[in-house]
Amino acid sequence: MVMPIGNPPVIVLMTDFGLTDTFVGQMKGIMLSITPAAHLIDLTHAISPQNVAQGAFMLGKSLPFFPDGSIFVSVVDPGVGTLRKAIALGTDRHTFLAPDNGLLTAILQTVKIGHCVHITNERYMLSTRSSTFHGRDIFSPAAAHLAAGVTLLELGEEIEPSECTRIALPGSTTPDNGQSWEGSIIYTDHFGNLVTSLDTNHLDQSKPWIVRAGNCKPLLLSSTYGNVGDQQLLAYVGSSGTIEIAVRNGNAAKLLGLQNGERVWMSGV
Amino acid sequence: MVMPIGNPPVIVLMTDFGLTDTFVGQMKGIMLSITPAAHLIDLTHAISPQNVAQGAFMLGKSLPFFPDGSIFVSVVDPGVGTLRKAIALGTDRHTFLAPDNGLLTAILQTVKIGHCVHITNERYMLSTRSSTFHGRDIFSPAAAHLAAGVTLLELGEEIEPSECTRIALPGSTTPDNGQSWEGSIIYTDHFGNLVTSLDTNHLDQSKPWIVRAGNCKPLLLSSTYGNVGDQQLLAYVGSSGTIEIAVRNGNAAKLLGLQNGERVWMSGV
Amino acid sequence: MVMPIGNPPVIVLMTDFGLTDTFVGQMKGIMLSITPAAHLIDLTHAISPQNVAQGAFMLGKSLPFFPDGSIFVSVVDPGVGTLRKAIALGTDRHTFLAPDNGLLTAILQTVKIGHCVHITNERYMLSTRSSTFHGRDIFSPAAAHLAAGVTLLELGEEIEPSECTRIALPGSTTPDNGQSWEGSIIYTDHFGNLVTSLDTNHLDQSKPWIVRAGNCKPLLLSSTYGNVGDQQLLAYVGSSGTIEIAVRNGNAAKLLGLQNGERVWMSGV
Repeated sequence: MVMPIGNPPVIVLMTDFGLTDTFVGQMKGIMLSITPAAHLIDLTHAISPQNVAQGAFMLGKSLPFFPDGSIFVSVVDPGVGTLRKAIALGTDRHTFLAPDNGLLTAILQTVKIGHCVHITNERYMLSTRSSTFHGRDIFSPAAAHLAAGVTLLELGEEIEPSECTRIALPGSTTPDNGQSWEGSIIYTDHFGNLVTSLDTNHLDQSKPWIVRAGNCKPLLLSSTYGNVGDQQLLAYVGSSGTIEIAVRNGNAAKLLGLQNGERVWMSGV
Repeated sequence: MVMPIGNPPVIVLMTDFGLTDTFVGQMKGIMLSITPAAHLIDLTHAISPQNVAQGAFMLGKSLPFFPDGSIFVSVVDPGVGTLRKAIALGTDRHTFLAPDNGLLTAILQTVKIGHCVHITNERYMLSTRSSTFHGRDIFSPAAAHLAAGVTLLELGEEIEPSECTRIALPGSTTPDNGQSWEGSIIYTDHFGNLVTSLDTNHLDQSKPWIVRAGNCKPLLLSSTYGNVGDQQLLAYVGSSGTIEIAVRNGNAAKLLGLQNGERVWMSGV
Repeated sequence: MVMPIGNPPVIVLMTDFGLTDTFVGQMKGIMLSITPAAHLIDLTHAISPQNVAQGAFMLGKSLPFFPDGSIFVSVVDPGVGTLRKAIALGTDRHTFLAPDNGLLTAILQTVKIGHCVHITNERYMLSTRSSTFHGRDIFSPAAAHLAAGVTLLELGEEIEPSECTRIALPGSTTPDNGQSWEGSIIYTDHFGNLVTSLDTNHLDQSKPWIVRAGNCKPLLLSSTYGNVGDQQLLAYVGSSGTIEIAVRNGNAAKLLGLQNGERVWMSGV
């Protein structure tokens, strides 16, 4: 059931390492040392430091947009150097490597897992390893070896997917009497748009919906920025499939002063 | 007259999406899903949010430095989700995809256009499209299909280049009695250098020139940082061919307190 | 003794140019114009503006993680446009291009140099060159031509490595009566960890060591974050092999208020 690696192999990186240091560059150096032909894509390196839940959410939402055969290296790793496992698992489309701290929750919850391993084979790690940078010393070489043809089961001992850590994904929507849903603000994007956890997978968008947040007036769910005037607030279905709150050509986070984690609600009119 | 695509094809990305979210990563995922061999280059993702004029300026100044056959995906798109067109056009060197909002003004004004199309063929878009992220859902797949061999005319209906939106490029120099030129500060770069719109294409650099901005003393046009001492102000011809104002080993924006849009002048001595 | 270029060739970029402008994108455009198959890796573009010493340190620490045959383009260049030379040199693993201002000190001090040249051959530069952006106009085309098969000696006139500028690397550790070492804080990383110059190459980590900085209580050298509780301070051997001071799941720079350049000490217990 495991997808063959792409040709050229694609390795997708998501971390909380930022781009100001040499962390990401060194990871790429290691990967190209092992697999010179690999294509390396940065999903993002701006997960908030140590925010595993945000990383898990963003990784889950991004899967549909990557090629079959992609290998995802995801490192948000507050427990680096402790006994937390390094794991790798395969689905019918992708392969994932991450610390076993919940970062793969969205995959474990929604996709059928093939093999799942505890990465222990030192042959596929750097021979000298730091205690603080397993992204470079363990995950990068393991991913590159997979890209070069090593199989998942060669990376270590097989474990049951049920043994992997799962966490509550940030503000998963909570049905409440079937009439309204409660969620939270997960993060603020580059434009100041407030990305919420209010899922719209089962939303009947032909009906009118109201979104509430903070002291802001109730917002009618719009289909596009064009529905409101310049500098006006609106709620709409964002590009990740959850409700977002924005100011057209403006910055909703600044205007509303809302923080990550604050509650939001959606209900029928 | 249209340039063949390079081998491997090069796709150049310019957006106002920033690098903190997964926007750019998802665009790249889509492109490699369609054209695994493509080389993806980031021109910049730090155009000021919704600043079409700045994007148009920076795109125009960067063309000379990219290979023949490059495909440029430029997305600064305040009108996403409205009726503004998505367009693609070819020149004898490059292909460009962008919202039809003036972002391609520099190309339309200075380069001979071959075919120009309104991107409407859903076959070359994502099947599920958001109303807020056409960079991922329309422009990326269209560019990748071009890189894979689809022709421009297959993307949609041909339109006349004259139908495309043009805007006034930021502070284009204005001759004033033939003795002096007026322009404006377009943006401040990473070093705090003030990049102005004062063009030097026709400037006789063998003669002395004076540059004025804000309350700053008049600056003699220098040929290099080395002409002034450490922490001293200077004006010089920047790497994009327009006048810049800088402090050697310092930050002119901080020192002068000048904002984007403020006027600058150049005149003979 | 010079390493052959990799296949595909890998070019590694380190600059103080940041990612908000089009500087890095233009450099990549030039390189792919000359060598379409090259793999371009960003080591970092966030060296502090004009901080040659920081760049020299970070480059030196990153070498072990890059493939044999890599070409490093390093540009932190306060003297651009002055008489400082542009140089290129080869070792048995890598090739390096940089302004001759000390940026290659770590290589000159620790690795055996093969050929070393003053880059003067205009055939391998852009025909039109600015006086402020040699990263694009001189170093990028030279590196790409090397990647395409041009030899080091074709780039210009050979010089002795001893002619190249060397600088004092930031806070190299200073033995002091054999019992304690003094160093300094070199930079603060994305997590707020304080990276020091205290080298651990010859440290007997089986013995206990104490690290001191600012008004902070003496810290016992730990092997991993897991040795202390949440939000607690610790000192440990960082992933570059020097001592770092961090707060577990927190930000040491904010907590301690220490600046780059401040002194730190390590001694036996």
